[in-house]
Order: sequence, then C-alpha cells, then structure tokens
Amino acid sequence: MPVARAIRDAMENSSMIRKMFEEGLELKKKHGADKVFDFSLGNPDLEPPAEFRETLLRLAAEERAGSHGYMPNAGYPHAREALARKASREHNVEIDGRHIVMSTGAAGAMNVILKAILNPDDEVIVCRPFFMEYRPYVANHGGILIEVPPAPRFDLNIDAIRDALTEKTAAVLINSPNNPTGRVYSEETIAALADIMLRHGKKTGRFPYLIADEPYRELVYDGAVTPPVLCAYPHSLVATSYSKNLSLAGERIGYIAAGPQNKDTLMDALVYATRVLGYVNAPALMQRCVAELTDIKANTAVYAARREAFKRTLDEAGLEYIEPEGAFYIFCKVPAESRGDDAAFVNELKKHLILGVPGSGFGAPGWVRFAYCVNEETIKASAPAFKAARGRFLG
Amino acid sequence: MPVARAIRDAMENSSMIRKMFEEGLELKKKHGADKVFDFSLGNPDLEPPAEFRETLLRLAAEERAGSHGYMPNAGYPHAREALARKASREHNVEIDGRHIVMSTGAAGAMNVILKAILNPDDEVIVCRPFFMEYRPYVANHGGILIEVPPAPRFDLNIDAIRDALTEKTAAVLINSPNNPTGRVYSEETIAALADIMLRHGKKTGRFPYLIADEPYRELVYDGAVTPPVLCAYPHSLVATSYSKNLSLAGERIGYIAAGPQNKDTLMDALVYATRVLGYVNAPALMQRCVAELTDIKANTAVYAARREAFKRTLDEAGLEYIEPEGAFYIFCKVPAESRGDDAAFVNELKKHLILGVPGSGFGAPGWVRFAYCVNEETIKASAPAFKAARGRFLG
Repeated sequence: MPVARAIRDAMENSSMIRKMFEEGLELKKKHGADKVFDFSLGNPDLEPPAEFRETLLRLAAEERAGSHGYMPNAGYPHAREALARKASREHNVEIDGRHIVMSTGAAGAMNVILKAILNPDDEVIVCRPFFMEYRPYVANHGGILIEVPPAPRFDLNIDAIRDALTEKTAAVLINSPNNPTGRVYSEETIAALADIMLRHGKKTGRFPYLIADEPYRELVYDGAVTPPVLCAYPHSLVATSYSKNLSLAGERIGYIAAGPQNKDTLMDALVYATRVLGYVNAPALMQRCVAELTDIKANTAVYAARREAFKRTLDEAGLEYIEPEGAFYIFCKVPAESRGDDAAFVNELKKHLILGVPGSGFGAPGWVRFAYCVNEETIKASAPAFKAARGRFLG
Repeated sequence: MPVARAIRDAMENSSMIRKMFEEGLELKKKHGADKVFDFSLGNPDLEPPAEFRETLLRLAAEERAGSHGYMPNAGYPHAREALARKASREHNVEIDGRHIVMSTGAAGAMNVILKAILNPDDEVIVCRPFFMEYRPYVANHGGILIEVPPAPRFDLNIDAIRDALTEKTAAVLINSPNNPTGRVYSEETIAALADIMLRHGKKTGRFPYLIADEPYRELVYDGAVTPPVLCAYPHSLVATSYSKNLSLAGERIGYIAAGPQNKDTLMDALVYATRVLGYVNAPALMQRCVAELTDIKANTAVYAARREAFKRTLDEAGLEYIEPEGAFYIFCKVPAESRGDDAAFVNELKKHLILGVPGSGFGAPGWVRFAYCVNEETIKASAPAFKAARGRFLG
C-alpha cells in the first residue's frame, strides 16, 4: 500500500537506528538480556514515586461525574493553576493558569507550539547536537530546521545563533539539560541568547520565540539548578513533561508554559493547535494526577550514583566524555584512533555487547551517547567490556 | 505575540461556534444551568461502565515494573491483539495485532492516517455533512478536502464521489454512524462505494484508501449493526476510539485497524507518524484498560430512550428531522418559513434557552444538530420551548 513520499524517505533515513535496535534485540536473544549492556534507550527504568501510585489509586477510586470525559482543550483549570505555580517557581515569573496548556507529553507540546507559530518556510534554529525528533517536528508544520554548530564542550553557540537569525526565524529551540550531551546551559548563556534575540527583534520587528524543551529540568546533579527561561526572555515558551522526572513516559502527560507577557492570541492558538492536531486534550486522569504532584521531586540520587559509576567506567577505559550536568546521558568521544567514525565505534562496542547511539544521529559525528537508565551494577559490570572494546579498537 | 497566519485565519473562522459556546455559558450563568436546554455538545454524559472502573482500579493497584513507561510506538502487543480480535469480529475479517496501531483517540488516529498517506495536494473526498474537524485534519498534512453533496436523506452520494475521484485522490473519508446526521450507511451503500473505488483503482493504478471514522459504531438502535468496512474494500483503514461508547473522551484512547492485506510499509508508516506527530504512543494505562474491555457494550438503551423523547419533542413542535439510526445526534430541518437560515433559527432557539449547532458548520446549511447527551427529563422539559420557538419563528 502506498504511503506518503516524505514518510517513506524519512523511514529509510531512520533505518540505521531501527537496525541498531533490532540488532540489540538479536544480541539479547542470543546472549541473554542480562549479558547485554544496553545503554541505548532514554527510557527511565525507575518506577514512578510512591506518591504517584497513591494519587492515581485515590483518583481512580473517586467516582466523580464526568471525570473521564471532555474538559476544555487547554486542560482542567485546577491542573493549569497548579502547574502555573510550579512553572512560576522554576522560571522566576508570576504566571497563572491562563499561561498553561496541558499537553500530551513534551513531544505533544513541541508539535502544538510549532503548529501554532510556524508560517510556511519559517525557520527554527537549533544548536547541534540535538534530539533527533526535532527534524520531523519542525517539518510537520512546514518549517525549516536551521542547525548551527555548537560552542566548545557543546555549549550553546551564541555567535552562530546570532548569525543564523533572519526575518524568517520563528523560533530558537533549546534543550537544557541537553539530550544527548547532558549539558545544562548557564544563566549567563541564557542571558546572552536572550540579548541577541531581543536585539534581532528590535532591528527586524520580529521577535523569535525561544522554545525551551525541558523534560529533564529536574534531573540535575551536584545541587545544580537548571536556569530559568521564562524570566529571561519575554517571548519564551516552555515545553515539558512528566516522562523523565516521574517516569511516566508512557502516559503522555506534559504542559506548555508561557511567560506573563503572552496574551490571548498566542494562548488561543496553542489551544486551537491542541484541538486540530487531534490531541484534543491531555489525558484526563493523568492531568488530575500531576496537578497534585507538583512538589514531588525526581529521584536524582539514583541517577547521580549511576553517573559516577559511568564516569569511572569510561575513565578506566581511557575514554573521554563531556561532564554530564543533567539528564541521564553521558556523551563519549570516539577514540582519536578511530578517526571519529562513531558508527564503527558503536559496531565495535556491540561486539562486546555494549549498546550506545552514534552521535551522528544527533548532528555530532565522532561521539556516542550512552543512557544510564539502567541499574548501577550493569554499569559497573560493563567496565571490562568497555576496556576490551577500547583495546580492540586501538589494535 | 504573532501566531501562524493559517491558525489565525482558522481561529477567526471558528469564532462563530466559539461565540455560541460563550453565549451558552452566559445564558447558564444568567438563567441557571438547569434552565438551559443545552443540546450543543457531543460529550457523553453517561459515566463509563462499572467494568471500566473495576479494571482501572485493579490495573492502577498493580505495581508491575515499567507499566507507566514507554512501550513500542504501536502500543502494547497484548492490547493490539485484543483489539484485533474485536475489529475482526466487527469487520468480518481475520486480522491480528500487526494490523492495529493504538492511538490517542479517534482524532489522533485520523491525524496519524492522514500524515502517513498524504502527499502534498493529495485529495481526500468527504460527503457533506461531515464532522467539521476533518477540514483542519486534512490541511494539517498538506491535503485538500474535496466536499461532495449528499444523496437524499443524507445518504452517501456514490455518484458524486465517483465523479470526484481523480489521480490525486488519496482517500475517501466516511463517518458512520454519522455526526451530525445520525445516519448509518447500509451494507449496499458501502459495497457500492467499494465498487467505484476498486474500478477507479484498476483504471488509474492508484487505489484510494477508504478511511472509516467510526467512534459511534456501537451506538446504533433498533437492533441495527453498523455494516463492516474492512471486509468490503481491501484498502480500508478504521479510525476509532472509546470516547463515545465507553464515555472515555477525556482519556484519549483509540486505535487504527487495517485490513488483512495491509502489509508492513503502511503499518510502519502509521507507527512512524504516531511517533513524529508527537503522540509517541497512546496513553499506557488506558491501553491496558481497553484491552480488557473489548466485550463491554455501550449503554445504547439510555440513548435509545432519549432518541424517542427527542423525536416526540420535535414531532410535537412540528419540526422535521432525519431519523437518527446511530450516534447521539438528531439533525433537524430549519422550518421552511425561515428560508433555510440555520443561524437565525439557532438564534431564535437560544431566546427560548435551547442550544443547538447550525448545520452550516457541517456543510449542511438549513439544518440544526441537537446532541442528546443529556438526560431524558431535560429533553422532555424542552418541548414547550421548542414549540414556542417554532411559533415565534413562524410569527
């Protein structure tokens, strides 16, 4: 049966990752799942916190009329108010429920935002490396993704972003803590970004939106705090979810938060986009759950311990990496001897039953992403395999 | 803040319905909600069945690892198998889980299908009147909606559809039981549609998909059964949900079913579209619920009684309507004296505190849609208001 050409082409392009995924399944079948060091997936293995389970059970037991039926497309008013309080705290602004649209995860939030703001051939600037789904998200809504190279150590490249700003720029898209690098952009970096975007807006009359995709906001280490965005730039939109911090990835619950300056038209457009993209509204029961869980924090201690274990493992194998400041990824440099061929290095790792994702998919050839959504023992147990892969590769 | 031009224009066009909705709220505030006969919304007021509550509570209490995390984008294998059995029964085919993609409601299913199959400027044929969201759904994915007039009594107009088929036709879209008319297309009508589509395919080499949007399939009366589609035409895709039959509209759970001939490429495209449109997967907990509820039937007896009450009410007011065979809508003809001005008639009804939706929004000027998702007493109590509105309108 025929399918859309764009979809067929895109499926062919994403076949490498699919192939890797299938090869991983084969490896597990052949060697046993416990023998394979699978660091390929960003799927939290921690269970949702006890407070979530209690809240879910309590709300499921309630027999309030209409509690599984439609509500306004923007979401339950009480959920929007609760998340406005949370976003206000995190982003150093004072917003209320009118500035929140409940969404079907952060992926839903991103698509709703792009649908609401993009005119045909509008440009969205992103700094490499970046979450690979941004490409289809922007293309879905007729936009063009403009990729700029990173600054050293994968910081945001403010100069490159400034040079890329045009009158077609609808938005600059950032992701901090970053997938795949684990970098958290500093307050100064966000301020510098806001500065160039404000200057550009004043000059051209078009202020690009700053879209902050931040499902990993709470997953930071060493007492760090992800710097706020809404207070830094008035035309900011935050897309986020409970997929990573509360391990609810399968339930598809998130929200969009806009700054206090954002008035009716933008919020109306976000609500309209939620409706016509077929989301209609974020899943009802999960809206009610997360509205009560705004004070529950992610279990970062577990991830912090894994991060240490992973760093030791890579250190012992003599592999370089970017110091992970947040999220649950460690971005590892392909050894110099490999001439930066991340696919080849990933293949070599696979022979030692280690699964990672080549950086090329994120726009960063020469690097490999490992996710530490696996228990600490697996990370520690992988040390000999990493050493052997490194040795073999050198040889 | 600027928004996309297409969104701004679309919001302006849908402002009539929004205005009506807001006026309805005003009326309720002024007169009391119990004094207003609100037949405007297709939001089931029946609670989900007891079996749903029991299943939800049991599954919520389970603490199975990973039960709120990611699963394959197509959905849980056991849910897909369960719904394949249900779809096989309903559509007189033998399909298995590979032919099912779990979706975020029927609206999500529709968007996923259109994303997967539409090339730019491809055409989707629909017979008037139709659910107004089809316009943005098709436009979202670069398609063009081709509207054809209905046959008498709002049956599918096979001749008009045949005349509209071109080499750009990617799909014919039907909705049975129909919103807004309540018509159920007969087996003969479906067969005639399949026949012209097969002939067209043989002639041009392009077989259009038949997309059957059928969230109301189970809501039929007088022992009727909605005729099957998957067995009637090999290139069929069913989009459906549990929003209407189990009153789970807010939970956004549904699925796509394809016929047995549909092989990997189409199913892969549907899964890919699910991922990149940002749905990622249908909400996890609700997938697990509906997988266990495939034998639970909608409570059609309640709707059947309301349908009778509504028919009597309109009969007594001397208003004509289309005999509703399914769904929970009754499509009422604007009295001849009104010269078919449905907006004026709706305004007159509003003076008598009756809320309905003008048929113009569905592509059927001269008609008004009333939804009987309200209790029978409200329908009965509205009789004097209908009579008065009719009288006033005549006068």
